[in-house]
Amino acid sequence: MGFKQLFRVRWVDTDIAGVMHYSNFLRYFEACEEEFYRSLGITLSTIRVEYGIMLPRVEAHCVYKAPCRFDDQIEVTLSVREISDKTITYDFQLQRNRDGRLAAEGYLKCIAVNNDWKVVSLPKHFAELLRKSGS
Amino acid sequence: MGFKQLFRVRWVDTDIAGVMHYSNFLRYFEACEEEFYRSLGITLSTIRVEYGIMLPRVEAHCVYKAPCRFDDQIEVTLSVREISDKTITYDFQLQRNRDGRLAAEGYLKCIAVNNDWKVVSLPKHFAELLRKSGS
Amino acid sequence: MGFKQLFRVRWVDTDIAGVMHYSNFLRYFEACEEEFYRSLGITLSTIRVEYGIMLPRVEAHCVYKAPCRFDDQIEVTLSVREISDKTITYDFQLQRNRDGRLAAEGYLKCIAVNNDWKVVSLPKHFAELLRKSGS
Amino acid sequence: MGFKQLFRVRWVDTDIAGVMHYSNFLRYFEACEEEFYRSLGITLSTIRVEYGIMLPRVEAHCVYKAPCRFDDQIEVTLSVREISDKTITYDFQLQRNRDGRLAAEGYLKCIAVNNDWKVVSLPKHFAELLRKSGS
Repeated sequence: MGFKQLFRVRWVDTDIAGVMHYSNFLRYFEACEEEFYRSLGITLSTIRVEYGIMLPRVEAHCVYKAPCRFDDQIEVTLSVREISDKTITYDFQLQRNRDGRLAAEGYLKCIAVNNDWKVVSLPKHFAELLRKSGS
Repeated sequence: MGFKQLFRVRWVDTDIAGVMHYSNFLRYFEACEEEFYRSLGITLSTIRVEYGIMLPRVEAHCVYKAPCRFDDQIEVTLSVREISDKTITYDFQLQRNRDGRLAAEGYLKCIAVNNDWKVVSLPKHFAELLRKSGS
Repeated sequence: MGFKQLFRVRWVDTDIAGVMHYSNFLRYFEACEEEFYRSLGITLSTIRVEYGIMLPRVEAHCVYKAPCRFDDQIEVTLSVREISDKTITYDFQLQRNRDGRLAAEGYLKCIAVNNDWKVVSLPKHFAELLRKSGS
Repeated sequence: MGFKQLFRVRWVDTDIAGVMHYSNFLRYFEACEEEFYRSLGITLSTIRVEYGIMLPRVEAHCVYKAPCRFDDQIEVTLSVREISDKTITYDFQLQRNRDGRLAAEGYLKCIAVNNDWKVVSLPKHFAELLRKSGS
């Protein structure tokens, strides 16, 4: 259920409070998304070159439940929540593995734009791949 | 209405799509929050040392409306939406000044914790300062 | 002597050791460089569009002398050390203003490349601007 | 020869020039260093808690030889160059795997300090571990 990827909290991810900075959760969400695409045989670069589209975010949300510390192993789970004509919404969960606690959960909504930043439909082949992924 | 602070989009803030990375909007929200505290004569360090509390985020939300590019001057506006016993919620708007367009808006909800990361009430003096700020 | 720019160490710039992460000194060097170009009436975008060149770094060096903490005001000074046919070398000093101590010094060597990443000569007008800057 | 670690260039690592930002090479050097410590059974946190020391950088150097792009797999190699009474110097090489080219090389010199940021000798056990590592 969902695509899972492991990461390690880096020294540079932490801040003076001794925990991962809140903006970095979004970076790990995205890193998971990148690995999810790779698992489908594509990359954001491929999408850009082959389909001529980019997927800027139109909405991001994160609820923080427990802090992550330096060197924590974290597991991010991506689930495809919704694919519409022009948008994709991914749900994310971020678990810290030392105690299995859910550290954060949130979502990202992306929209397809062409190289002139005009909103366009998601390429069919790409939408199909996402639907078939089972994530 | 609200506390306003100007920033400049840096080269390092941009990504391969030529626009500011979505996680960096949250960093500028926070930079505005830091300047807001300074305008009240306090800093997050002061809060930590004097009151023994930190203000980790429990929720972050951002809606992206228009991309920001390298060298764009941006103006972030912070408004205090709600102060409860233990939490503060700030609303943010981020405008790109080249055309006055609203580039993003969102909110951050923070919770007071002591140095052991136990949730505590907001120090009265601090809550008072926020209320009186008129932002 | 040299072009000077003030910055403020942000929460996100710090790490678990309570000080600015060592990679962020390079980011403030660059932010100073960006403001230096602006003071000359150009930006890296202008350079890219008007002259068709980019200025990737070929060498970076930094000696760290004193830590910078959250909320420190820092002053970065850029001096043009050398302009050759294809490269520019900038010297940087980063002072923390709370006690006037030199916190770091270093240099960046940049090389002119065209949009295909082929090394090219620095545009004359641009080199001239740098030489006349007095920095 | 040397400790090797693989990474993937993330979208957020890139900038408007379409390549990894120059400051991020230093972050991957450090990530490799963190994995190197882990391979020895320790972490920077352990060092801090068990030995009461931190290892701030006193010098960083990087020569950039070829750009890294989004999604490039990169391999960082760490070699222990020198261990003195109070300092450690690591050499780094960063290879982009798509063509095996050396993308960057540099070094980091770290110094042992206690929790009051006073320079101290490297803990013997720690220095021993580094020497025996064969890296």
